[in-house]
Amino acid sequence: MTSATLSDHRPVQIAITTGEPAGVGPELTAQALAGAAAHWPHAQFTVLGDAQLLAERARVVGVDWAALLAQGPRVRVEHRALGAPSRTGKLDAANGRYVLDLLDAAIDGALAGKFDAIVTAPLQKSTINDAGVPFTGHTEYLAERTHTPRVVMMLAGTGKRPLRVALATTHLPLKDVSAALTIESLVETLRIIDHDLRYHFGLPAPRILVTGLNPHAGENGYLGREEIDVITPALQQVNADGIDARGPYPADTLFQPRYLDEADCVLAMFHDQGLPVLKFATFGEGINVTLGLPIIRTSVDHGTALDLAGTGRADAGSLMAAIDTAVSVAQHRRAG
Amino acid sequence: MTSATLSDHRPVQIAITTGEPAGVGPELTAQALAGAAAHWPHAQFTVLGDAQLLAERARVVGVDWAALLAQGPRVRVEHRALGAPSRTGKLDAANGRYVLDLLDAAIDGALAGKFDAIVTAPLQKSTINDAGVPFTGHTEYLAERTHTPRVVMMLAGTGKRPLRVALATTHLPLKDVSAALTIESLVETLRIIDHDLRYHFGLPAPRILVTGLNPHAGENGYLGREEIDVITPALQQVNADGIDARGPYPADTLFQPRYLDEADCVLAMFHDQGLPVLKFATFGEGINVTLGLPIIRTSVDHGTALDLAGTGRADAGSLMAAIDTAVSVAQHRRAG
Repeated sequence: MTSATLSDHRPVQIAITTGEPAGVGPELTAQALAGAAAHWPHAQFTVLGDAQLLAERARVVGVDWAALLAQGPRVRVEHRALGAPSRTGKLDAANGRYVLDLLDAAIDGALAGKFDAIVTAPLQKSTINDAGVPFTGHTEYLAERTHTPRVVMMLAGTGKRPLRVALATTHLPLKDVSAALTIESLVETLRIIDHDLRYHFGLPAPRILVTGLNPHAGENGYLGREEIDVITPALQQVNADGIDARGPYPADTLFQPRYLDEADCVLAMFHDQGLPVLKFATFGEGINVTLGLPIIRTSVDHGTALDLAGTGRADAGSLMAAIDTAVSVAQHRRAG
Repeated sequence: MTSATLSDHRPVQIAITTGEPAGVGPELTAQALAGAAAHWPHAQFTVLGDAQLLAERARVVGVDWAALLAQGPRVRVEHRALGAPSRTGKLDAANGRYVLDLLDAAIDGALAGKFDAIVTAPLQKSTINDAGVPFTGHTEYLAERTHTPRVVMMLAGTGKRPLRVALATTHLPLKDVSAALTIESLVETLRIIDHDLRYHFGLPAPRILVTGLNPHAGENGYLGREEIDVITPALQQVNADGIDARGPYPADTLFQPRYLDEADCVLAMFHDQGLPVLKFATFGEGINVTLGLPIIRTSVDHGTALDLAGTGRADAGSLMAAIDTAVSVAQHRRAG
């Protein structure tokens, strides 16, 4: 019996970063964890955020936060102080550093083995940028802080046959996308997807469908050459390693049952090629997973929803789905 | 009483170009028109294609083509000879000119007032290009042949509250999209959409939602500046003319009921930003309408489906929806 098997009996440890304090992150965290005992009986949660803020926002959504924390080790708060008092809907650059503090604490804890997975609530990039810190996104930041040369952003629905969409490029201006795609980058991306779907998601032989970059996948070169010069050679290279990746397919007709029923993941070439359809299909229940990291990280697929913050009308569905996935991947990894 | 009102009693005249002879166009046309008397009692159809080919492909889908034609003026064939015998699934550049002949006959007939609208079955661009004729798409060709400086491609579902997605750019390599977007081009595009939704689709005050170009609509300039430099100024200009166009919105979160319920049309900046979600949502019943032309043109939203041609398994749903829209817009225009 290995130590991995022995350790199955301990609950998995999940860190939740509550993100932008003016947004819906704190209140959705309270809402999601109110049902923690029923939904995730074998997990324990560390909520990263300002303790007073969390208590206030829990009240907005009718959660008895003090009672929840008093129940014992299932939910605990690891306090980090706000830079300035936060009002819902009002961004303040004085809290840019606070948002990063939460993230750093989660990453450091995960790298040290204190957390088995981290779940991130939404942040507002401009708050951090306006605080003078260059920041292009959670995904990029996690890669940098863990010294990971390449990560892959994957969004997914939940359920029995989830639609999963990974991205070959993420938060880049559209005009820079073509230059960012290389044979090497695509090969690494496909290897990461194949590896993590096998070892984190438990799919024994992942099937990946790959979009083209140009309309109609370039129509044999008439509408662009990246399919011929970059995508096809990358597919040939990973196919030779036994990875089941096919394409390039025209993005506009790929998201149909005749294709999706035969796939575990679609790799889209850029953000707005893959995500509008994924978010339409998953409809508030989508999640974001960062593949390729040494740690497990899932996230909501929505933003800070500043207009909804404090109203109690935001939907915790995506955060609960992100926690679900974090718990099950953490359990799977531990068992494996 | 005007002549327009008097003319209401004549059936509308619809031309159908049967497109690539190796594809599903001919057989879908036969299938769709088999129910013409029931579906479109006030329309007459001119089918453009090779008479023998049409008879053969009608047989594949179990349609008694000779009997249909013998019924009188509802369905007639205007024969154009193939360049070479055509087998399903086998492209042949010898038929590139034939495909264009069909299109030219439809356009000329519509410009001359012989047809009230044209419906186009799919063609294969490479067949035409390989025949030595530069050709980037139906939409672009229609614009050129009718001397229309700017047209707009719009795809739509059918039904009571149809999702409509128009495109600011169409069949361009992705790396050329940013340079193709100008304030002037967007202003003209928005004016065409507003005009045609009013006067062809009968919407008294069209509401248009506009996407950004970059991920998250550029995040206030952090992920690209086209939203600030091009899209927003274009919106301000058309708003001043009384056009209800709003944005730019992040494309990944725009296709949600809270936005779509308040919109008649979404304007996406490029092909693969708008069409994957539109085709996912409309699911084989989508149609393509070219706005801004002096003639009415609708089309299927799918390709030639070479692998399905001759099997009888292709679905005529999109072609029937395209005919539906052509008939109703033609009737609407005539009544107006």
